[in-house]
Amino acid sequence: MKIAIGVEYHGGWFQGWQSQPNRQGVQDHLEAALAQIAGTQVRLHAAGRTDAGVHALMQVAHFETTAARPLQAWVRGTNAHLPPWVRVRWAHPVADDFHARFSARARSYQYVLYNHAVAPATQHGRVGWYHRPLLLPFMQQAAACLLGEHDFSAFRASECQAKTPVRTMVTADVSQQGLFFIFSFKANAFLQHQIRNMVGALVYVGQEKLSVEGFADLLQQQNRTLSPPTFMPDGLYFTGVQYDAHWQLPDCDQSWQG
Amino acid sequence: MKIAIGVEYHGGWFQGWQSQPNRQGVQDHLEAALAQIAGTQVRLHAAGRTDAGVHALMQVAHFETTAARPLQAWVRGTNAHLPPWVRVRWAHPVADDFHARFSARARSYQYVLYNHAVAPATQHGRVGWYHRPLLLPFMQQAAACLLGEHDFSAFRASECQAKTPVRTMVTADVSQQGLFFIFSFKANAFLQHQIRNMVGALVYVGQEKLSVEGFADLLQQQNRTLSPPTFMPDGLYFTGVQYDAHWQLPDCDQSWQG
Repeated sequence: MKIAIGVEYHGGWFQGWQSQPNRQGVQDHLEAALAQIAGTQVRLHAAGRTDAGVHALMQVAHFETTAARPLQAWVRGTNAHLPPWVRVRWAHPVADDFHARFSARARSYQYVLYNHAVAPATQHGRVGWYHRPLLLPFMQQAAACLLGEHDFSAFRASECQAKTPVRTMVTADVSQQGLFFIFSFKANAFLQHQIRNMVGALVYVGQEKLSVEGFADLLQQQNRTLSPPTFMPDGLYFTGVQYDAHWQLPDCDQSWQG
Repeated sequence: MKIAIGVEYHGGWFQGWQSQPNRQGVQDHLEAALAQIAGTQVRLHAAGRTDAGVHALMQVAHFETTAARPLQAWVRGTNAHLPPWVRVRWAHPVADDFHARFSARARSYQYVLYNHAVAPATQHGRVGWYHRPLLLPFMQQAAACLLGEHDFSAFRASECQAKTPVRTMVTADVSQQGLFFIFSFKANAFLQHQIRNMVGALVYVGQEKLSVEGFADLLQQQNRTLSPPTFMPDGLYFTGVQYDAHWQLPDCDQSWQG
């Protein structure tokens, strides 16, 4: 039997999604909690691997098990064995040929940036912060340059292990909610540190340290060493995964609400 | 010289506003950081004392000092000596007869409640949580009963040291933002645990365990032992203080935005 789960977590309390030798990956905690319910070992496969400090409003993962349990046991039972910074939001049976990673058509992320002279105390660890005023229209224009199929080497971490730097961006926009800027991205997949690097460059555009044309050139030049620095992980949220409708999964799209 | 400061803090990292023997009150951290800038001891007086776990988007406090410093030193300098969960947002010189507590005309609080079957992972410690559906209109009608001058003994902690249980409520309403209910209150002052007790009773109304009439009766009976339990501190935010315009303070009103 194959079961998919929707998972939310606060990345500041874990060393990224992936299983770690010290068992402090989100995956380690979830596999241990699911094993309590299954009565045997459980191995998770996730739609995306988030880095240390990066949050998820909606990560999707699947596991195979021979243990027959009511779906609520995989949700409420598992949650009872987890630290409060990670929660299974739903569990759903899926066909044998479903794979959380390989069946995913697209991933969505949001980067939340707090823009004020003073850093946010109550939101510490949950948002990025930039202290000088940012101009929204320039950031919006630059973000639009990212749409479509591109070689994203300009925004790729040197350690990135992806086979190709080519990705197709279907959403890239910036909105403002009071003192927060929200950068929203959706693509078939993302390179390592891609969003944090794109946000770093967009923040340069927002303060006019880089023009919209300069931003477009940066993308064209495909040279990471020319790009502005990587932004802090604190503001990055994995918000959703898109699967074909025939898998009949619950809603896999969330949006940052605070 | 008298200086007022606006302060934001995440209550989960401190044992309440007030100075503690173990120096883990917000006041302890602030007084130590301000002393670094002043070069001498500093004693703070705050508009309101928040309990352990309760947050502030806008607490106002004042201190007296003979140290002449640029205002930015009281903000940026002090912040450099504080843990990231507390931040001075502004500093402003005030007349000698200003007092953060005694000059305050009214205090505002918001209680943020996450309403979903599964607890919030990314918002853990920052919002209250209730797992069963709540009916907004009943909660709104009940909240309206709180408006005006009342004896609030029904919602007063047994340890409360206030001289009188009579308070004047000028705002009491409930709104919904997605999965969050936001309870907003403004009064000349509040009793100990008053808001967490009122929210506990309003949540009973929202799930029809208590009628709107029953809620009104509860208030009339002035008997805390008849009231539903105190709600968790996690969702409570001190959001603002009202002072007369002649003190010329910066904006002392905030609103929960996430």
